[in-house]
Amino acid sequence: MKDKNYFLKKAEENRPQLFFRKIVPDAERFLAESGNSIVLDLKEHAVGHFSFKFDNYDDFIDAPVRMTIKFGEDLYEINREFSTYEPGLSKTWLQEEILNIDLPGEIKMPRRYSCRYIKITVDFTRKPIVLSDFCFTASTSADITQLEKAETNDEMLGRIDEVATDTLKECMQVFLEDGPKRDRRLWTGDLRLEALTNYYTFNNNKIVRRCLYLFAAGETDELGFLPSYIYETPYYFSGRAHIADYALLFVVTLCDYYEHTADGDTVDDLLTICKSQLDCFEKILDENLIVTPQKGWFSFIDWCPGLKALTALQGVYLYTLERFADLLEKLGDCDCKKYSELLKKVRLSSKTHLFDENKKAFINYLDEYQFNIHSQVWMILGGVIGGEEAKELLLCALESEDAKQPVTPYMQHYVVEAMLKLGMKKEATEYLKNFWGGMIELGADTFWEAYVPGEPDFSPYNDRLSNSLCHAWSCTPSYFIRKYNL
Amino acid sequence: MKDKNYFLKKAEENRPQLFFRKIVPDAERFLAESGNSIVLDLKEHAVGHFSFKFDNYDDFIDAPVRMTIKFGEDLYEINREFSTYEPGLSKTWLQEEILNIDLPGEIKMPRRYSCRYIKITVDFTRKPIVLSDFCFTASTSADITQLEKAETNDEMLGRIDEVATDTLKECMQVFLEDGPKRDRRLWTGDLRLEALTNYYTFNNNKIVRRCLYLFAAGETDELGFLPSYIYETPYYFSGRAHIADYALLFVVTLCDYYEHTADGDTVDDLLTICKSQLDCFEKILDENLIVTPQKGWFSFIDWCPGLKALTALQGVYLYTLERFADLLEKLGDCDCKKYSELLKKVRLSSKTHLFDENKKAFINYLDEYQFNIHSQVWMILGGVIGGEEAKELLLCALESEDAKQPVTPYMQHYVVEAMLKLGMKKEATEYLKNFWGGMIELGADTFWEAYVPGEPDFSPYNDRLSNSLCHAWSCTPSYFIRKYNL
Repeated sequence: MKDKNYFLKKAEENRPQLFFRKIVPDAERFLAESGNSIVLDLKEHAVGHFSFKFDNYDDFIDAPVRMTIKFGEDLYEINREFSTYEPGLSKTWLQEEILNIDLPGEIKMPRRYSCRYIKITVDFTRKPIVLSDFCFTASTSADITQLEKAETNDEMLGRIDEVATDTLKECMQVFLEDGPKRDRRLWTGDLRLEALTNYYTFNNNKIVRRCLYLFAAGETDELGFLPSYIYETPYYFSGRAHIADYALLFVVTLCDYYEHTADGDTVDDLLTICKSQLDCFEKILDENLIVTPQKGWFSFIDWCPGLKALTALQGVYLYTLERFADLLEKLGDCDCKKYSELLKKVRLSSKTHLFDENKKAFINYLDEYQFNIHSQVWMILGGVIGGEEAKELLLCALESEDAKQPVTPYMQHYVVEAMLKLGMKKEATEYLKNFWGGMIELGADTFWEAYVPGEPDFSPYNDRLSNSLCHAWSCTPSYFIRKYNL
Repeated sequence: MKDKNYFLKKAEENRPQLFFRKIVPDAERFLAESGNSIVLDLKEHAVGHFSFKFDNYDDFIDAPVRMTIKFGEDLYEINREFSTYEPGLSKTWLQEEILNIDLPGEIKMPRRYSCRYIKITVDFTRKPIVLSDFCFTASTSADITQLEKAETNDEMLGRIDEVATDTLKECMQVFLEDGPKRDRRLWTGDLRLEALTNYYTFNNNKIVRRCLYLFAAGETDELGFLPSYIYETPYYFSGRAHIADYALLFVVTLCDYYEHTADGDTVDDLLTICKSQLDCFEKILDENLIVTPQKGWFSFIDWCPGLKALTALQGVYLYTLERFADLLEKLGDCDCKKYSELLKKVRLSSKTHLFDENKKAFINYLDEYQFNIHSQVWMILGGVIGGEEAKELLLCALESEDAKQPVTPYMQHYVVEAMLKLGMKKEATEYLKNFWGGMIELGADTFWEAYVPGEPDFSPYNDRLSNSLCHAWSCTPSYFIRKYNL
């Protein structure tokens, strides 16, 4: 029987191998007294474990030594006092330890960190000490020997591709994490984009398969939706949040997976769950086939503050229906027709009820008449609008000062995807270069969870110290560059 | 050749076995949210490692949890905020850790602690957590199965004996430590008293032998004295301080050792060093055979603030000369006569130059005419004065408000030893019961490094938080009770 235990067994069978690599930072030795500090630079972003040697200098230290060790994904994190953190998320995500060390020897810090810089401050020592043999052991399940260079002649695109593949590599651990610094969980929204980029880069199908099974083992909510995240370490725990767009994207992720692997066994295992996600969604449609609001954190779409995200969710539903009907057609599944016909009806109704013919945009009662990019993009991706009409709408919306703009590379992915769907390859390339290239110009080693050009302090969590600077959902430029030969 | 390497090899050959024992504190489970704390009670003093299990309560913690774990030898340490510590010694001796814990699992704290109480404060958690399976793994090289009960009918003496043997047991680790909470070093002054008590309790001669060789491997100072302390973990390091009374007590420790073990080989290995300690001391005597002041921390004797300790040091010299001459006589060593004759001359001269015939006490130019117990005690132990005259002097001095009194059980040991030497068994017993029993009445599980009746905040280090509450040099009641059948 295909129950939770079966899915967990399959997930375990597909546990990936981790590759380890030692990175030596730019300093060899640090002679320190109380109050001294040093900032080590790994010269790249890395996820893993830090160790160093600690010894007496000219006399035996006659009392334990206390040091503070801070790990930063960028220098802003290193330079800001963590005591000034303004709560939003948990302050415990800030990567800082206070160590008391009794005796000379090798200090192997037990926790995993995500960083480029390491700041060591000797808070208290009675006598001078020497720190040396700094070593950061980086880990990833991405096999970098499998990675080919992107075939692009554009220098900025080439650099963007490198940073994007580095971002993905860092998030590929024993499962596909959202961010190695913070959350370190399996989220459906991130999984879909990581998996997509993976097919064109490291091509590790095993880890995608594993993540699909991990979700399949999850507990559905009262509406029947899969959890939107999973903890798998140190034991399996099904996430409490159930976000409708994420539940739908699980289905899309399986469709992508089959497209790239033709692995019928896995699809066979997970098809019932996928049908159930779409059938559950159908139940929350009103008589016009428009989604009805539900309690809680129901539609994510983007971290945009104040975003009204039901029209976009309706778009995600259409997008999923189309992809799923295609999959069923390929599989010769007899339910194909049911979903295809539903798709047509919902599409038509969505145009009728959600498109404002005067304003020529998706601005409607469902989102309290909020004008946002998100609705336009997802209605395009959902096939509600197309051709020149859609191109004009999208370009106008992106230039409009009235429209709520995306704040994450996650939503920006779907903007670019919409452009490419509309055949706007030139505009998509420029957009991608401007947006992701903007992070590189600001010194990014990996792509960030949230980025609003011109607003360096933007954070969905009240304080930019909480932002993850290496985030899975930001890695898709490599997918676009490689798939579409940008 | 008997060089440093030879001595270190012998020390290594005599490394003792450690015995481990799991202690379960009085609480089984702690359900906590941010700000909650619990105090665990081991119901006994223990030295070792702490572990516990950490798990989710009703949901997976979605961010690391931060906790502060504090170890206290008594409740005063637990209840006092360490941030109010007033510097004297290093604040890093205060046993407190800040832990960031990512995931459910067993938390094995890597450092060794010395405590009876453990306070866990959950500084920050997003969701309730459960701590359980608290376990303290205590270690000692004392084989408690070798320990017999003291044959005393006095209830308080019986209790004092238990606390004293516990104190010794806690300090017996891979070498004889001075205090397991603070310093954790091998000091000659502590070694001598630990070794002495050991012969009547756990009778582990191997560990004493090991410590003697560790000192023998040390680097002598410009006067030729052995170091007064040694670090042996994680590698051998010869201490920088050279204290004359401690250098002499190394010789006494070997004399005690031979008396209890008749181990001629070890004595043979170390005899040259002992002779050298006495010969070096002889070189710093003046024309009247009285010790001359030397720079630095030259005479320790006791932690008494402002103590003038040269007369007492002269007494330690005489005490050592007598013990050493006895040893040489037993060994049939031809140098015996030389030291015996010197002893007589120095004794005579000490009485002539250091005893004030009017005041009937050792109050003299050498110590700027300071009246202290220490001089009287060590002159008695050095055989400069004896009989009724000495008894009267000692009792008067102990009752005098003008005399500087001892502040450590270390010096109090020699007070009791002097009484017993003078045949004052009854007074010695009462004195011992009052002094060590006073700590028990204040709740001591083990005997303290420093104790002044009526002054609970007394500390030689400015803040009582620095005091070690389980200190080797305080364990000698068991020696007295068992040797003299008190």
